[in-house]
Amino acid sequence: MKDIDYSLYLVTDRRLVGGKDFYQSLGEALAGGVTLLQLREKEASSAEFYRIALKVKEICGRYDVPLIINDRLDIALAVDADGLHIGQQDLPLSVARGLLGRDKLIGVSATTLAEAQLAEADGADYLGIGAMYPTGTKSDARAVSLSELTAIRKNVAIPVVAIGGIGTANVTEVMGTGIAGVSVVSAILAQDDVRAAAQHLRQLIITA
Amino acid sequence: MKDIDYSLYLVTDRRLVGGKDFYQSLGEALAGGVTLLQLREKEASSAEFYRIALKVKEICGRYDVPLIINDRLDIALAVDADGLHIGQQDLPLSVARGLLGRDKLIGVSATTLAEAQLAEADGADYLGIGAMYPTGTKSDARAVSLSELTAIRKNVAIPVVAIGGIGTANVTEVMGTGIAGVSVVSAILAQDDVRAAAQHLRQLIITA
Ligand code: NI
Repeated sequence: MKDIDYSLYLVTDRRLVGGKDFYQSLGEALAGGVTLLQLREKEASSAEFYRIALKVKEICGRYDVPLIINDRLDIALAVDADGLHIGQQDLPLSVARGLLGRDKLIGVSATTLAEAQLAEADGADYLGIGAMYPTGTKSDARAVSLSELTAIRKNVAIPVVAIGGIGTANVTEVMGTGIAGVSVVSAILAQDDVRAAAQHLRQLIITA
Repeated sequence: MKDIDYSLYLVTDRRLVGGKDFYQSLGEALAGGVTLLQLREKEASSAEFYRIALKVKEICGRYDVPLIINDRLDIALAVDADGLHIGQQDLPLSVARGLLGRDKLIGVSATTLAEAQLAEADGADYLGIGAMYPTGTKSDARAVSLSELTAIRKNVAIPVVAIGGIGTANVTEVMGTGIAGVSVVSAILAQDDVRAAAQHLRQLIITA
C-alpha cells in the first residue's frame, strides 16, 4: 500500500454543506489540501450509499486522495475503496480484516489507551482518537484530553489521528502532541469557503 | 448449491416477538416447518447485526435451514450466510453477485413483471413478489394482485416467492398461482404459539 498522508483527514457529513452541492464541496476541500477522505453515511439506503460512494471515489481520484468508507464494508468492497473505518459499534476488526485483506486500510475509532492498543494488536492500520473537543456532530462521544491523546500516541506504533471539534482554534495544540493528523468535519464542510478553510487548516498543520 | 425449499420462507422482525425471546421464537418457527429464513435488521448497528446473525446462523444450522441476510452483503460475508436478499433500495444485483459469487443465493424483491424479468436477466436466484395483501410491516409497499403474481410466475424461470400479509386465511389462494413458496413475517412471529403457526402454514402449503 502507498504511504498515506493522514495530516488533514476529512470526514463527510452531507447535512453540513447546507444549500451547496455536496460533491462540489468535496472537490473544493480536496483542492484546498485535504489528504484523506472518509465517506460517512448513516441514513442512506445501501443503493444510495453505493451511488454516492461511486461519485466520491471519482472525485478523490482526481486529487489522488484515498477514499475510506465509514462502517459499511460492503460499500467499501462494492466501490473498491482504499479502506474502511470502523467504530466500536461496527464489524469487529478481525472480521473486517479477513474480508478486506491486507491491501486495504482499516482504521479504528478508540477513546482509551486500552482500546487503542487492542486495535493495534488486532491489526488496525491507524487509529481515530476522540472526541477531543465538544462537537455538534457526535454529541454522545466521550471526551479525550490532550494528555490522554499524547499517551496513546506514545504507546502505539501505528498512526494516530485526532477527531472531534478540531478547527483553526485548536489544531496547533492537537498537532503538538506529535500525532499523524487531524480529522475534521464541520471545520471544513460547514464553512462558507470550503477550499479556503481546508487551505488554512493545512497551513496550520504544516507549521505546527 | 443444494436445492432450496422456498415453500415457507420466514422473514424476521424482532419487534413482532413481543415479550418472548427472539432466538427461541426462531427455533420454534424452524421446528414448526420453516424451510428458509431471512434475517432482516433495519435498525441494528453493524456490530449488533453481526452478533445476531451469528446466533441465528447457529439456530438455522440445527435445522439445516439456509440463512439469507437482508440487504447487508457485509453481514452475509461476515457470517458466511447462504445468501442475500436485496430490494430495489439495496446494492445493485450485479454488484452483489460480483462480490458474493455464484455459490451464494441472491434473491431480489420486485413488484412488477418488468422488475422481475430484469432481476432474472441479471442473475437473481429467486424473486420475492409483493406486497400481496395489506400489511403493517411495510405499509408503503405497492400492492400486487394474484393475476399479476401469476403473470410473473409464468414469465420467469426462477422460483417466485410471494410476500406481504400472507397467513392462514390466504396462503392457499396464493399457492394456487403455482409459485414456489410464501414469505411470512407476522403470521408466524406475532403468533402466541409460533411453532403451531408454522406447522399450520406448512400443512396448508403442502395441501394447496
Ligand atoms: Ni451451487
